[in-house]
Amino acid sequence: MPAISVPQKIAATKGYGANIVFSGSTSVERDEVAARVIAETGARLVPPYDHPDIMLGQGTIGIELQDQVAEAMAEEAEAGGKAEARKGLDAIITPCGGGGMLSGVALSCEGTGIRVFGAEPSYQGADDGKRGYYAGSRVRSVSTLTMADGLRTPVGEHPWGVIYERRLVSGMYSVTEEEIAAAMRLVLERCKMVVEPSACVPLAVALFDEEFRVMVEREGGEEGWDLGVVFSGGNVGVEAIGSLFRAS
Amino acid sequence: MPAISVPQKIAATKGYGANIVFSGSTSVERDEVAARVIAETGARLVPPYDHPDIMLGQGTIGIELQDQVAEAMAEEAEAGGKAEARKGLDAIITPCGGGGMLSGVALSCEGTGIRVFGAEPSYQGADDGKRGYYAGSRVRSVSTLTMADGLRTPVGEHPWGVIYERRLVSGMYSVTEEEIAAAMRLVLERCKMVVEPSACVPLAVALFDEEFRVMVEREGGEEGWDLGVVFSGGNVGVEAIGSLFRAS
Repeated sequence: MPAISVPQKIAATKGYGANIVFSGSTSVERDEVAARVIAETGARLVPPYDHPDIMLGQGTIGIELQDQVAEAMAEEAEAGGKAEARKGLDAIITPCGGGGMLSGVALSCEGTGIRVFGAEPSYQGADDGKRGYYAGSRVRSVSTLTMADGLRTPVGEHPWGVIYERRLVSGMYSVTEEEIAAAMRLVLERCKMVVEPSACVPLAVALFDEEFRVMVEREGGEEGWDLGVVFSGGNVGVEAIGSLFRAS
Repeated sequence: MPAISVPQKIAATKGYGANIVFSGSTSVERDEVAARVIAETGARLVPPYDHPDIMLGQGTIGIELQDQVAEAMAEEAEAGGKAEARKGLDAIITPCGGGGMLSGVALSCEGTGIRVFGAEPSYQGADDGKRGYYAGSRVRSVSTLTMADGLRTPVGEHPWGVIYERRLVSGMYSVTEEEIAAAMRLVLERCKMVVEPSACVPLAVALFDEEFRVMVEREGGEEGWDLGVVFSGGNVGVEAIGSLFRAS
């Protein structure tokens, strides 16, 4: 873990029983430390996103979401509710950093008719996935300080194959820092859930992105869509919440 | 609602469909406005805590908690788990301001063998319930600016009858502002739940109050207790979280 990681993330990881090895914060430094640990202990590397196993592992989010919706609809039908009028999930939107989660969820929806979308911050070019997707060529490096710090990574090679080449992702959208903060405020204050900025990017797209909303109106008609919104990441301390929302 | 209420509370209440009438912040001003609304509209007053109906209504928290534990134990038993070794809830601890919730929960546990405890802030005499309980005489007024602003009220007459006179509450405990803040940090950062300071007072007692811990060790023996901890209140905005936990 980079030694500059937020104290809450370090404490939580230790609390769950991990033995943490610290590194510098550049990818070169991280790779060196990982190589040393592997040489010393015979440990196996689990890469953070650019690996088929990781994509499949994160893709279970999509399966869980589909199962939960099916279960809720079955319960509604049993209770004589309005389930007959409902057709299940129309779409899922997930955060996109390295693309592991987005591509995994997309794989979980293949053949189901559920459309999958990716959500990114736009600040300082953090929307590399969206730019690459519409330009037809993967953007390989990004340098951004977006508050959605879990999404600063460029899309990896393996996820790209699913997102773009296999066209399992139907579109990419991006939002501003202000939109991310507004979504985060809503989630904390009304849903009473603590989530980090990165987790709020898909909701920000659903609430504030004009292009996305127009598309939903066009495709969903009067009924609209049942949209699954993935929130991922709660590594934010109370001091960081204070810094993000300084009282004016 | 007092016009000085936090904006998030006003917005949320409106969002749930309420028609809000504002008043001054003293109890005299509030009573005047309530009397005027009743005269004009024939509305019925629902007092915030000092009324048997309110105590019974808030007491459903105790019933829900007992039902949830029974359900969880039945599921564990069905799954062949260790439920046989478990005896269900030993005790419940709730916040105590006006005492409506504490007395209601105590009523819900009458005859069950589940002991009920009250938790208060100690700052500037906010522990009126505890002081009254051990002195044998209700404290009728309190003036405190504890961060647990939902618990600044003295215990009301009707709750007092249940808490003290009928002895349905087994003990009262209090914690410092620092202990409340530490419990709140833990709930936000590790449980990922947004709760206001008042909601964290019972957890602070369970974690930090030496007297309470000694009692649990004495009564619970090696197995300890299965303790139900009531969290009540999430009216805290992101700016207020920032003010409570200023980065040093």
